[in-house]
Amino acid sequence: MKFNLEAKDIHSKARAGTVTTDHGDIQTPIFMPVGTAGTVKSINQQQLENDINAQIILGNTYHLYLRPGLDIIEKGGGLHKFIGWERPILTDSGGYQVYSLSKVRKIKEEGVTFRSHIDGSKHLFTPEYAMDIQRTIGADIIMAFDECTPYPCDYKYAANSINMTHRWLKRCCNRFDTTEPKYGFNQTLFPIVQGSVYKDLRMKSAEFIASMDREGNAIGGLSVGEPAEEMYGMTEVVCNILPEEKPRYLMGVGTPINILENIALGVDMFDCVMPTRNARNGMLFTKNGIINIGNKKWADDFSPIEADSDLIADKVYSKAYLRHLMHSKEMLGAQIATLHNLHFYLWLVKTAREKIISGEFYAWKNKMVTILGNKL
Amino acid sequence: MKFNLEAKDIHSKARAGTVTTDHGDIQTPIFMPVGTAGTVKSINQQQLENDINAQIILGNTYHLYLRPGLDIIEKGGGLHKFIGWERPILTDSGGYQVYSLSKVRKIKEEGVTFRSHIDGSKHLFTPEYAMDIQRTIGADIIMAFDECTPYPCDYKYAANSINMTHRWLKRCCNRFDTTEPKYGFNQTLFPIVQGSVYKDLRMKSAEFIASMDREGNAIGGLSVGEPAEEMYGMTEVVCNILPEEKPRYLMGVGTPINILENIALGVDMFDCVMPTRNARNGMLFTKNGIINIGNKKWADDFSPIEADSDLIADKVYSKAYLRHLMHSKEMLGAQIATLHNLHFYLWLVKTAREKIISGEFYAWKNKMVTILGNKL
Ligand SMILES: [Zn+2]
Ligand SMILES: [Zn+2]
Repeated sequence: MKFNLEAKDIHSKARAGTVTTDHGDIQTPIFMPVGTAGTVKSINQQQLENDINAQIILGNTYHLYLRPGLDIIEKGGGLHKFIGWERPILTDSGGYQVYSLSKVRKIKEEGVTFRSHIDGSKHLFTPEYAMDIQRTIGADIIMAFDECTPYPCDYKYAANSINMTHRWLKRCCNRFDTTEPKYGFNQTLFPIVQGSVYKDLRMKSAEFIASMDREGNAIGGLSVGEPAEEMYGMTEVVCNILPEEKPRYLMGVGTPINILENIALGVDMFDCVMPTRNARNGMLFTKNGIINIGNKKWADDFSPIEADSDLIADKVYSKAYLRHLMHSKEMLGAQIATLHNLHFYLWLVKTAREKIISGEFYAWKNKMVTILGNKL
Repeated sequence: MKFNLEAKDIHSKARAGTVTTDHGDIQTPIFMPVGTAGTVKSINQQQLENDINAQIILGNTYHLYLRPGLDIIEKGGGLHKFIGWERPILTDSGGYQVYSLSKVRKIKEEGVTFRSHIDGSKHLFTPEYAMDIQRTIGADIIMAFDECTPYPCDYKYAANSINMTHRWLKRCCNRFDTTEPKYGFNQTLFPIVQGSVYKDLRMKSAEFIASMDREGNAIGGLSVGEPAEEMYGMTEVVCNILPEEKPRYLMGVGTPINILENIALGVDMFDCVMPTRNARNGMLFTKNGIINIGNKKWADDFSPIEADSDLIADKVYSKAYLRHLMHSKEMLGAQIATLHNLHFYLWLVKTAREKIISGEFYAWKNKMVTILGNKL
């Protein structure tokens, strides 16, 4: 993997760059649609590529490991081939879902034992095994196995936790560096800064993460319930420490406003289930604010979902039709709303990139954050 | 509406023709995907037009009347505009769903009272109102309000029922002929032959229906549980009576084999929920037989769903991937399977048409019906 830093905003820490992988380039800042179980829910890979122009998608190790399972993915030639997607893929380490989805789980120095939320079967993820699994899934960018602390989290727990996360990271790196990719293309490992909402812990963690000198770095454990200002505070502290010449990935963030504010703080990569999950609940993000399509006011609004969009679905389907589909629980409703929201998120980061390059980012960002939260 | 009969098979009653509507031509024999509530479940209108090349779709009056309701459809400029579909649409009369979905319903000479399966509200459909509703929905081809008898049905009931269906038809024609289309394009009314599985009743009904001299004719009340041979027997009797120069629409039929056999008997138009509903349950229809994608045997079959298809989804997605999606209840599974099945059904009728024109239909049909039922 390579990262080429192409432009820096003079009024903020925002940057524009290009990540190069064996599956192609990613122009940053970028948003990565979440394809949990090998599918971005409710849309297909042609739509992702042609309608949305997604440059990279994310897969969830926890879900893929449980279903279809590593044997199927490996026999199928890795995740790209298995799902029919030839652009870059990033996988998380599985840790986050273990903590959030599995009912019975035990964190020890060795790793985490948990029970499948599907069939209750017992499993153990260790830092080493998380590397092996991600080698087998075959993502271009794989993530370190860490502990993602919840919010709120007391200081002592958070302090101990980053120490374990750092010890786990060494084990991840050892395993990763002594194993080979399985499918003929390169993979790279991103470590993850933790430290809850404690500035000193975040600094300590960021320094350790930076010292590992991997090709890119991530910030985890944010957007887990803390106020947005605390999130921005942590991002700022961490971005000041993480090296400028490597991409920075803020995990699981966020609203359109969160994304713009974090771009301004120096973040390059984002993922979040919000555009896809909220789409399925009828919440549309637009340039002018948020539409809850279930509201009665849209029932007879026959205007296009977004008239000045270059997404076909935005132009040929009306708000009233989309509301009808959602109201009738028709799958096409989820499909259209998902296309719309992902298209909007990718428009947002693409425009941010253009504005960074043209030097207009800061003013544009400040204008947009006053609009994007409006309820239409 | 016009119908141009272009070719007749010499070894069977099969025909090829073109139905011309104000929304474009329909080349027959044709299969019409069912778009119950203004959407063909799980796929979008661009996929219907570009991937499937559907020439006409069907809407269900019962569903559309209840949700979004006539006021919304009319304010939206009719169903075509409301759903963003510019090719022909056919609507049923609502009768069939009233009989099958509504728990409380009462059939009287005046019409049918029923309760909505959604909110329990009480409604009355009369022949006249069924015409008014379909004028408002704005389909190109609208259907007479009839009684669709269940199977089995005793002779006396069936005999009385066709008499009422015929009296209702006169009321439908009167109302239709004294009202105007609402959206600037022409609509046409197809009457429906009933008579259960009784040859003499079917003949009597077909003669009456033919005597009404509408632009096309339909056969209803089949594929409701009777053996296939009884269905074919009824279709044969009725097609011998219905005029040759008008299209014949066999409602709610059926399997790929049913469709080929009925084409051989002189049917031009079909609709059925089978390709779409069964897709959502993981049943795929192919040129070589039926695939139940849920079977364990497909778990590690990484071959394309159908390698020699011109549908993108058939080529880029494997059986193993589709099985994984279905198994994980991911919406993309329903989308891919629906695309596949509708594409197959439209391939089937398109090929039938080509074979009729080239004079090879009968031999091809006989070969295909021995293959299409195979379980792969
Ligand atoms: Zn999120
Ligand atoms: Zn059917």
